Amino acid sequence: MSLAESVLQGNRLALARLLTQVENETSQGLEDLNRLFPHTGKAHIVGVTGAPGTGKSSLVNQLITAFRHPPEGQQPRRVAVIAVDPSSPFSGGAILGDRVRMRDVAGDADVFIRSTASRGALGGVAASTANLVQVFDAAGFEMIFVETVGAGQAEVEIARLAHTVIVVEAPGLGDDIQAIKAGILEIADIIVLNKADRPLADNAERALRMMLELATRKSNPATDESPPLLEWRPPILRTVATEGRGIQEVVDAIWHHRHFLETSGEWERRERRRLCAELENLLQAALMKRLQETISPETYQGVVDDLVSRQLSPRQALEILLDGVKR
Amino acid sequence: MSLAESVLQGNRLALARLLTQVENETSQGLEDLNRLFPHTGKAHIVGVTGAPGTGKSSLVNQLITAFRHPPEGQQPRRVAVIAVDPSSPFSGGAILGDRVRMRDVAGDADVFIRSTASRGALGGVAASTANLVQVFDAAGFEMIFVETVGAGQAEVEIARLAHTVIVVEAPGLGDDIQAIKAGILEIADIIVLNKADRPLADNAERALRMMLELATRKSNPATDESPPLLEWRPPILRTVATEGRGIQEVVDAIWHHRHFLETSGEWERRERRRLCAELENLLQAALMKRLQETISPETYQGVVDDLVSRQLSPRQALEILLDGVKR
Repeated sequence: MSLAESVLQGNRLALARLLTQVENETSQGLEDLNRLFPHTGKAHIVGVTGAPGTGKSSLVNQLITAFRHPPEGQQPRRVAVIAVDPSSPFSGGAILGDRVRMRDVAGDADVFIRSTASRGALGGVAASTANLVQVFDAAGFEMIFVETVGAGQAEVEIARLAHTVIVVEAPGLGDDIQAIKAGILEIADIIVLNKADRPLADNAERALRMMLELATRKSNPATDESPPLLEWRPPILRTVATEGRGIQEVVDAIWHHRHFLETSGEWERRERRRLCAELENLLQAALMKRLQETISPETYQGVVDDLVSRQLSPRQALEILLDGVKR
Repeated sequence: MSLAESVLQGNRLALARLLTQVENETSQGLEDLNRLFPHTGKAHIVGVTGAPGTGKSSLVNQLITAFRHPPEGQQPRRVAVIAVDPSSPFSGGAILGDRVRMRDVAGDADVFIRSTASRGALGGVAASTANLVQVFDAAGFEMIFVETVGAGQAEVEIARLAHTVIVVEAPGLGDDIQAIKAGILEIADIIVLNKADRPLADNAERALRMMLELATRKSNPATDESPPLLEWRPPILRTVATEGRGIQEVVDAIWHHRHFLETSGEWERRERRRLCAELENLLQAALMKRLQETISPETYQGVVDDLVSRQLSPRQALEILLDGVKR
C-alpha cells in the first residue's frame, strides 16, 4: 500500500512520513501528492501572521483547543497546524517550539502540529507550504492553520494560500511608525489584538482602526460610496491568549467569515487564485531548471565573469543567456 | 543629455527622476541603467533589517549623521538610504516616514533618502531594490543603506544584496520563543541591540549571545575546532539610537567589517554572489514572460479549470503547460 493510501485511511505514522517526503520533494512524495490531490478542497485554510512577540503561537494553541472542544451542540473539528519559518535554515527553534506546544494536545489523534523551515527546492516557501496543506487536506483535517512570522513578502504569498487570514497585533509595538503596516492589514480578514490586557491596548486598537479605515478607503479610491452589501469588513478582536480570553470570539469570526466566503462566491474565487498561484510557482521553478539544463556551466560562468568585471550589465547578460536558449 | 549622463554629473533632480523611472521599469529607465552599470561597484552596501519596533529607522538616521560628520581626520561620506517596504502596496506610510526623516538632513546634497514599496514587475522586490542600488552607486554615493522590515524571505534575499548586514534587535520582544530568530542571526555581520536602556536589555543580550553561539556552531556541524583565522565573528553592540548612544561603535564595526571583507577576499565573493542573484531574478522573470507569450490565455484557463475541479493536480497541470512550450 502506498503512503498516500495509508494517509487516506487515517494512518498517523504514514501521515508523518509523507509530510517529510513531500517536504524533501522526493519523487515518491510528489507522486503520492498527485494521488492525494483529488481528495483535497474540503479543508478551511486559515493563515495566521504577525510580527514576533505578538503571541501568534499562543493564539493558535488556544484556537486548536477551541475547535477540539466547542460549545455544546457544535461538532469538534480535526485540526492541523503548519508553522512556517522561512528565515530559519535549520529547524532548532521550530522543534523546540513544537515540543512546548505539543504538550497541550498530546494524545489527541485529531490534532497534528508540524513545523517547517523548508524553502522548497522547487518554487520556494509558498509552494512547499502548499504541498503540506494538500496532504493535511486529503488526510481529512477540517481546519488547517498556517502560521507565519513577520510581515514580509513571504507572508503575503502564504496568505494567498488561505481562505481566511488572521493578522495578530499586540500593544506596545505601535510606538514605531512602521509597526502597524497598512500593507499587512490589507490582507487581513480578521484582526486580533492580542495581549489586550497591556496598558497601551486602547491606543493600539485606535491606531489599528485608523489604519484599517485608511487601507479600506485606499482600496476604493474612485468612490466615496458605501461598500457593496456583500463586502467583508475585518473585525478587530481583543484577546489575552495566554489566559484564553476572547478566543471564542475569534472562533465565531472564523465561522462568520466562512459563511461570507460561501455566500458571496469568494470561496471559489480564493480557491482559484490559490491554485493559480501554486501553478505559477511550479512553472517558475520548472522553467529555471530547464534553462540550467540548456546552458553549459562554462557559458554561465563566462557571462557572470563579464558581469563582475562590469563589461556586461545584468540586462545585457540576461539577453545573452536567453539567446542561447532554444525558443 | 540622457538622465544617466546628468546623474553621473551629479544632478540631483535627474537622480530623483531616474530613480522613479527605474522603479517603474520604463524602457528608458532600464536603458539608462545599462549605461550606468559600468560606473558601479564602488559603493559599500549595508543592509539593515529587524522586526518592527526595534528602531531601525532611528539607527539609520544616526548612522547617516555619523558618516556625514565623522571624527576629526576622517572624511565625510556621501550616504544614500533605500527604505524597502515590500508589504505595503501603497506608499502612504513610507512617505510619512520619509518626511519625518528628511528633516534631520534637509539641505545636505550628499544625503539621499528614498522609500520604495515596489514589488518589481520583473523579478520581485530584490531585483527592484538592486536597480535602485545601482543608480546610487553610479551616482557616487559611497555608503548605501538598504533598510528592510521583518525577518522573512524578502529580507534574506535583500541581504544577499549587501556587503555588510546589520540585524537590529530590541529588548522586550524576546519573551517569545520566536522573537529572536536564529535564521536571521545567520545572515548578520553586525548585531545591534537597540533601546539598550530598557530594563530587559541584559536578558536580551544574553539570549542573543546564546542564539549566536548556536547559529555559529550549527553552521560548522562537522567540526569542534576553532574557526579559521579569517572568519568574521559578528559583534553585538548596544545602542540607544534616539539619544545617539553607541552609534560610533556601530560605524567602527562597519569599517572593521569592510577591512575584513577586503583582506579575506570576501568582498569579491559577495560581489559575485550579489550579481549572480540579480541575474537569476531577471532570468526567472524573463522566462515566465516568455511562457506567457507562448501559451494562449484559453489554454491556460482550461488547465486552471481542470485544476480547480481536481481533475488535474498542480504537477500534472505543470506538465501539460510545459509540453505546450517549444523546447
